[in-house]
Amino acid sequence: MRMDSIVERIQPVDRAWIERAQAHIDSLTKPVASLGLLETLAARLCAIQETLMPRPEPRRVVIFAADHGVATENVSAYPAAVTAQMVANFVRGGAAINALAYAAGADVWVYDVGVAERCSPAEGCTTFVSRRAGAGTRNIASGPAMTKPQLDLAIAAGIEAGTRAADAGVKVLACGDMGIANTTAASAVTAALTGVSARCVTGRGTGVDDARLERKIEVVQAALRANADAREPLDVLRCLGGFEIAAIVGAYLAAASRRLAIVGDGFIATAAALIAVQLCPAVRDYWFAGHRSPEPGHAVQLAWLNATPILDLQMRLGEATGAALAMPLLTAAAAMSTRMATFAGAGVSRQV
Amino acid sequence: MRMDSIVERIQPVDRAWIERAQAHIDSLTKPVASLGLLETLAARLCAIQETLMPRPEPRRVVIFAADHGVATENVSAYPAAVTAQMVANFVRGGAAINALAYAAGADVWVYDVGVAERCSPAEGCTTFVSRRAGAGTRNIASGPAMTKPQLDLAIAAGIEAGTRAADAGVKVLACGDMGIANTTAASAVTAALTGVSARCVTGRGTGVDDARLERKIEVVQAALRANADAREPLDVLRCLGGFEIAAIVGAYLAAASRRLAIVGDGFIATAAALIAVQLCPAVRDYWFAGHRSPEPGHAVQLAWLNATPILDLQMRLGEATGAALAMPLLTAAAAMSTRMATFAGAGVSRQV
Repeated sequence: MRMDSIVERIQPVDRAWIERAQAHIDSLTKPVASLGLLETLAARLCAIQETLMPRPEPRRVVIFAADHGVATENVSAYPAAVTAQMVANFVRGGAAINALAYAAGADVWVYDVGVAERCSPAEGCTTFVSRRAGAGTRNIASGPAMTKPQLDLAIAAGIEAGTRAADAGVKVLACGDMGIANTTAASAVTAALTGVSARCVTGRGTGVDDARLERKIEVVQAALRANADAREPLDVLRCLGGFEIAAIVGAYLAAASRRLAIVGDGFIATAAALIAVQLCPAVRDYWFAGHRSPEPGHAVQLAWLNATPILDLQMRLGEATGAALAMPLLTAAAAMSTRMATFAGAGVSRQV
Repeated sequence: MRMDSIVERIQPVDRAWIERAQAHIDSLTKPVASLGLLETLAARLCAIQETLMPRPEPRRVVIFAADHGVATENVSAYPAAVTAQMVANFVRGGAAINALAYAAGADVWVYDVGVAERCSPAEGCTTFVSRRAGAGTRNIASGPAMTKPQLDLAIAAGIEAGTRAADAGVKVLACGDMGIANTTAASAVTAALTGVSARCVTGRGTGVDDARLERKIEVVQAALRANADAREPLDVLRCLGGFEIAAIVGAYLAAASRRLAIVGDGFIATAAALIAVQLCPAVRDYWFAGHRSPEPGHAVQLAWLNATPILDLQMRLGEATGAALAMPLLTAAAAMSTRMATFAGAGVSRQV
């Protein structure tokens, strides 16, 4: 389905359902509001699924991988070859997200949406999908990351992934990223969309030193100058983003259109959330901030989205690792709403 | 087994094991330290179990319930009868901790260590245990909460619970509390042990208003005056604590002596942690701060214990609800250490 049709189908969550869920939660045997943020999560999950007994599973993690032309600017602590090496690692099940998704009871799908070196996983691997929009983006420091047809291909890959998840009955979706140098692209996207300076939204990524951080800030500034015409969200995405960021935008839109709960991840995935919410504000109703990353730009994104993250564990890995860790909290929120007794039912006295 | 023998058996965690675990974690396919606090949890779990493949289950929640004489001072938002009503609710499986323990894959045991109204659960309920040290404590505002024999009984109940968990193969234990007015006792214990003023460690508990908070502070001050002789941890526990707090101390000691990982909870359980760690500093090696409660005294306790909580969800319920929510994070930490590939094994390039 095309993006425009998807966006048209996204319905805001009904406020009346939030209130109904909160009234139900207030009737349960615990002091009012004593479960804090867990109650907020539960109420929204109820409203998304329009039930007081929400289901937090099945759940799925989809990782989108792509390379970035800007990696040639020496902005990352890792060589660009790592993108393809990590895709192989995802497919074999050896990466952090494989371990954390396993712990969270989520399956893992891997989409190659534009890794420079073509990935060839073992035959019969049904959770690897090749939907390449190119062999990596062009260098954003000197012009647009991708063409319009490439943008459409990358978004379509994400829409496909989100739609397949919904078709498979998935209730909670997380999207992750892999792409060496993609914090540089996410910084540029975030600066362009929020108006916050490159310096304030550029951080150490997977761990660059002071000198390379300065270099990275200069590269983001150059990218913003080279693509100064980009103002609309889709133009910002095309000129400054990456194939994996575009794919996550598509997956978020498709998931929201099918009323899936979406668990956000770190800096890259939240850049995609910014774009998706600008394209369709109702997406925000389906999106939960999974965790707070130490990347300075992530705080800017979360503030823009008015989001309180579930976790704050100083994680800065991407791959949807923060989202996977947050998934059990949604399970707990659903269990609270579904399984607890009411004051009346349990014969417990209320507040005096 | 008696407390003294238990304390003698508690061994500090071997620092060499922490280092071995961290070196293993650094060899896994992710940037060094990029999983933040999760790596710290994993390293400690490895060191506790002395393996690089730690097991985060089976896990158990034990709730200790007791009444408090100080409830007659009008310090709680709930009537004292709620303690017994909630015990019945725990046994029937309708409380918040039942829902959250279910979500976390933990079983739930309930110990009556001194509820005013005797609890009589349905016949055949094997996870309810009656080990009453009395029918509630005496009012701490006018003298000691309990006698020395009562203290011994309550601690012994906790030792039994911790020992039974270890005997059943439990790897991760959480202890919860139920007792109307027990934040007043925990405030008094915390003030006495840390030297921080009653005003700074007394909060709203399950939700008292401004006037009752002032009253509660005065009651804590009166309790400290009435028991000014209590200085040693066991004296503080006997004079200002509660049967459930004493039982949690016993359970923590027994769990540490059997090398179980302990997940801490909120203000009441952490008051017990303070006492257990003063009795035997090595207990701290086995104790993880599950969450941060909004109770002001909890921040004082966590600072004293030099602990970084796993979660901060503005929860203030007790019952081990914060601990149960944190348990899946230990599962994830164990999965990271156990299931991830190494850079060498996966053929992934390291940092340049």
